[in-house]
Amino acid sequence: MCRWLVYSGMPVLLDDVLYQPAHSLIDQSLRSRMGVETTNGDGFGIGWYAPGIDTPAVFRDTGPAWNNRNLREIAGHVRSPLFFAHIRATTGTAVQQTNSHPFRHGRWLWMHNGAIAEFDRLRRDLCLAVDPALYSCIEGSTDSEVMFFLALTFGLDKDPPGAVARMAGLVERVGRTHGVEFPLQMTVAVSDGERVWAFRHSSEATSRTLFYSTRMSTLRELYPDVAFLRGLSEETRLVVSEPLGDLPGAWNEVPESSYGVLQPAGDVLHHFEPQDV
Amino acid sequence: MCRWLVYSGMPVLLDDVLYQPAHSLIDQSLRSRMGVETTNGDGFGIGWYAPGIDTPAVFRDTGPAWNNRNLREIAGHVRSPLFFAHIRATTGTAVQQTNSHPFRHGRWLWMHNGAIAEFDRLRRDLCLAVDPALYSCIEGSTDSEVMFFLALTFGLDKDPPGAVARMAGLVERVGRTHGVEFPLQMTVAVSDGERVWAFRHSSEATSRTLFYSTRMSTLRELYPDVAFLRGLSEETRLVVSEPLGDLPGAWNEVPESSYGVLQPAGDVLHHFEPQDV
Amino acid sequence: MCRWLVYSGMPVLLDDVLYQPAHSLIDQSLRSRMGVETTNGDGFGIGWYAPGIDTPAVFRDTGPAWNNRNLREIAGHVRSPLFFAHIRATTGTAVQQTNSHPFRHGRWLWMHNGAIAEFDRLRRDLCLAVDPALYSCIEGSTDSEVMFFLALTFGLDKDPPGAVARMAGLVERVGRTHGVEFPLQMTVAVSDGERVWAFRHSSEATSRTLFYSTRMSTLRELYPDVAFLRGLSEETRLVVSEPLGDLPGAWNEVPESSYGVLQPAGDVLHHFEPQDV
Amino acid sequence: MCRWLVYSGMPVLLDDVLYQPAHSLIDQSLRSRMGVETTNGDGFGIGWYAPGIDTPAVFRDTGPAWNNRNLREIAGHVRSPLFFAHIRATTGTAVQQTNSHPFRHGRWLWMHNGAIAEFDRLRRDLCLAVDPALYSCIEGSTDSEVMFFLALTFGLDKDPPGAVARMAGLVERVGRTHGVEFPLQMTVAVSDGERVWAFRHSSEATSRTLFYSTRMSTLRELYPDVAFLRGLSEETRLVVSEPLGDLPGAWNEVPESSYGVLQPAGDVLHHFEPQDV
Repeated sequence: MCRWLVYSGMPVLLDDVLYQPAHSLIDQSLRSRMGVETTNGDGFGIGWYAPGIDTPAVFRDTGPAWNNRNLREIAGHVRSPLFFAHIRATTGTAVQQTNSHPFRHGRWLWMHNGAIAEFDRLRRDLCLAVDPALYSCIEGSTDSEVMFFLALTFGLDKDPPGAVARMAGLVERVGRTHGVEFPLQMTVAVSDGERVWAFRHSSEATSRTLFYSTRMSTLRELYPDVAFLRGLSEETRLVVSEPLGDLPGAWNEVPESSYGVLQPAGDVLHHFEPQDV
Repeated sequence: MCRWLVYSGMPVLLDDVLYQPAHSLIDQSLRSRMGVETTNGDGFGIGWYAPGIDTPAVFRDTGPAWNNRNLREIAGHVRSPLFFAHIRATTGTAVQQTNSHPFRHGRWLWMHNGAIAEFDRLRRDLCLAVDPALYSCIEGSTDSEVMFFLALTFGLDKDPPGAVARMAGLVERVGRTHGVEFPLQMTVAVSDGERVWAFRHSSEATSRTLFYSTRMSTLRELYPDVAFLRGLSEETRLVVSEPLGDLPGAWNEVPESSYGVLQPAGDVLHHFEPQDV
Repeated sequence: MCRWLVYSGMPVLLDDVLYQPAHSLIDQSLRSRMGVETTNGDGFGIGWYAPGIDTPAVFRDTGPAWNNRNLREIAGHVRSPLFFAHIRATTGTAVQQTNSHPFRHGRWLWMHNGAIAEFDRLRRDLCLAVDPALYSCIEGSTDSEVMFFLALTFGLDKDPPGAVARMAGLVERVGRTHGVEFPLQMTVAVSDGERVWAFRHSSEATSRTLFYSTRMSTLRELYPDVAFLRGLSEETRLVVSEPLGDLPGAWNEVPESSYGVLQPAGDVLHHFEPQDV
Repeated sequence: MCRWLVYSGMPVLLDDVLYQPAHSLIDQSLRSRMGVETTNGDGFGIGWYAPGIDTPAVFRDTGPAWNNRNLREIAGHVRSPLFFAHIRATTGTAVQQTNSHPFRHGRWLWMHNGAIAEFDRLRRDLCLAVDPALYSCIEGSTDSEVMFFLALTFGLDKDPPGAVARMAGLVERVGRTHGVEFPLQMTVAVSDGERVWAFRHSSEATSRTLFYSTRMSTLRELYPDVAFLRGLSEETRLVVSEPLGDLPGAWNEVPESSYGVLQPAGDVLHHFEPQDV
């Protein structure tokens, strides 16, 4: 399927997070350890919030991330306090820019790892449930983008966890109506530029992996000699499909059927359950 | 909008038709004379029928045709008795392979010049009218592809002119329901590998240009000294958005609101009228 | 051939310069007025200096600038006090990222409009004159990149005008040795991140057009009512292949056979003459 | 590095060879078993000879082969009696069409797996040894293309094995002059449209793998029940970087330091030794 990463914290050069870690997302594009596929070479994308600009930037392309020079250039020259990155392994839909994550609508970014099972058969019913005013914003052909527009339809603007729960509920109901036993498999990240919500859920309760980083102060206590950690501010957090390295204690698995919120008021972790609509 | 070309006749190297004429389609990609835009550089495509293979080949890309080396290679090495070629000027939808023409479904090829006015507002209603079994075959985001799947929905397989008339009728009805005065502008080519249908129609009766070539025997009488014409068999016909050169008498305008059929039994030209569905 | 633009001044969003003007560079990619070709759709590139990073970023791609979404995204989210932009019309060499301008080496950016006449015949001799330590840095197949590495060979680091004069002298000598009457046609921009040098020269003394913007204080006196001008600081200057709009008095032609320097100490304009090496 | 394949025999649909085998070249692009890298996703290419046309067609692109729709289309509609296919894993040079194999010059096709060690340091000397009349034909930046033009320089037209031996001799001499212990690693395929030469050599005598297929008559005796083998004519041969499947007895390793010739007069296998020039 795919691999993704969210960074939130003090403004850093994208390169520090995307390329520098031992098992960086770029390395995962060639050598994923925990993904369904080893290779994630069917397009990639980054989305970043720039100070003073409401709408995040999105840079997406169709080749592999590992050999993309423009990605390396941008990563080496752009700083951001909040960014998404995604590498794609298609399950059959076209490799095209509009199918690369993250997706954007207004100030929102969205990315997904997983799949709607038998999406071909469910696609029409799911698209019909999208707010008619948003229907024409769907540019690509992925399940992930339709999930995003369903979440927008169900109130992402006002209640992100509720909107995602209703989206998941709809997908599961429509799936089961069509005889699909386990319709949804997802880890999803979504942000409005201030907070980040990260979800882990699947109909069969064996979701794709998802990890968040340990608090910086704890890491510094554990590793007083690691210079790199001294440079990072306390509010730095990462959420990732798989750990970016092997430092013991640095990564914590997001539990099955739950979601976390990265926010100035303090991060929280909650149970996640689809809601029928 | 776009420019396109259909060739039907004895098998020829694609290059003879695509690159050799003075004002070839490749030249039109840079210097269209009759198009809405001078430049048609937002992707291109060719579709060709190969002897003994039911499904036509489709080669489409996202850059301009004029500098595409792969197109030149294929054109210089592939022979076909029936092929489509299309150069695109987008009116805003994404430049991606799945938005380049021709579109294919089974043995059918389809390409379009023109637009559905305010397609963003009509898109959902039109997509809902597509046969649910075909809905998931829609891969891109153009009006042209939706028109194709509507025609397939309305019986392209059995009655191509009727299916296209019903597609046009639906587009006009849906358009008017949404307050669009002139919803449809089109020249369309469609083929099943044996016959070719070419349509010229627009809601305001000022359609994009469309021409068909004069019979070879007539041209040879007119120009007994032009060696090139001696090489072409009698069944050779071209239908084009704009003439490929300036030979007087070589090109005939397809009349407003009409369609032609290229077929072994003899070509015919008919009046075209949208049918309400 | 090509069109290009240099911005130097207070940090601005690239979009303000690349997309907002009436006859912006993006508009010139479709509708150049003064270029040899109307269409400049064979690749494009931007290079920008980011505060605190010595090496400029380079973003280059192979399609047309006018429909590139990533360019628009970057332009809308990146600010820079000094950037280059270039749109390409190839004269035959491959359309590939390494042939798109600007070229970069260390902290230097280089871009070119024009051509070395009969470059195919001169290419080997010119490449042999490149410092052997730099030879393997040549990644593409354009005359423009070879000109850059010749200038680097001839001391760009220490004496930019002298290095460019020696590069031009070599090209003209090698050209004439091969019987080429007018070997060189160029407008060139080069920067080290602090100063910008812009050259206008051709062997036949009929060089491609080049313009620089009038001082902001003068423009504000001329147009006290134009709000846009009030937002720009005094040090803002543009050097362009053709004017970005029709404001009388805003643009001044760089004289034939001359070069200008944009620098904190005050801009200057000098005579340019190739030097034999 | 890379993987490649040559087919010579009765005309077949490219698809039969490129996509149908269990461990096809397309499968190898994601899951190479014997390559230096598992993933060969940095561009690909095919070259095929078409009946009645001297110059072979070349179709090359920059993304991975495994998700390229145009490759699949061409493979499914083009028949050829002799074709090359190559998937690339770059060792650092740019991913661009002109760096994808096969390379073509006149009626010649060339492709390579391996590398010239420390090519950056040797590149200039090797390029200088290319016939000045051919120098400007070098379009890309790979070692493989330079090797091709060296072989052309050294008489590929008249004595292919001798020309390749002299190319290898030069590379090894230049390499050693620069202090490179093992300058050359190569499996190379080259054809003029009638014969195919396949070389296996490396300076350290541990060359990349290379295999040729067992004679069809032998395979049919071994496997009288395999229907697929009955369809292939006696003159069918494949040369591949790694076997396309696990049929015992179907594949034979080309010995270290040797080359084979596929030709109407009967295939031969010879010792290969670089020649100093």
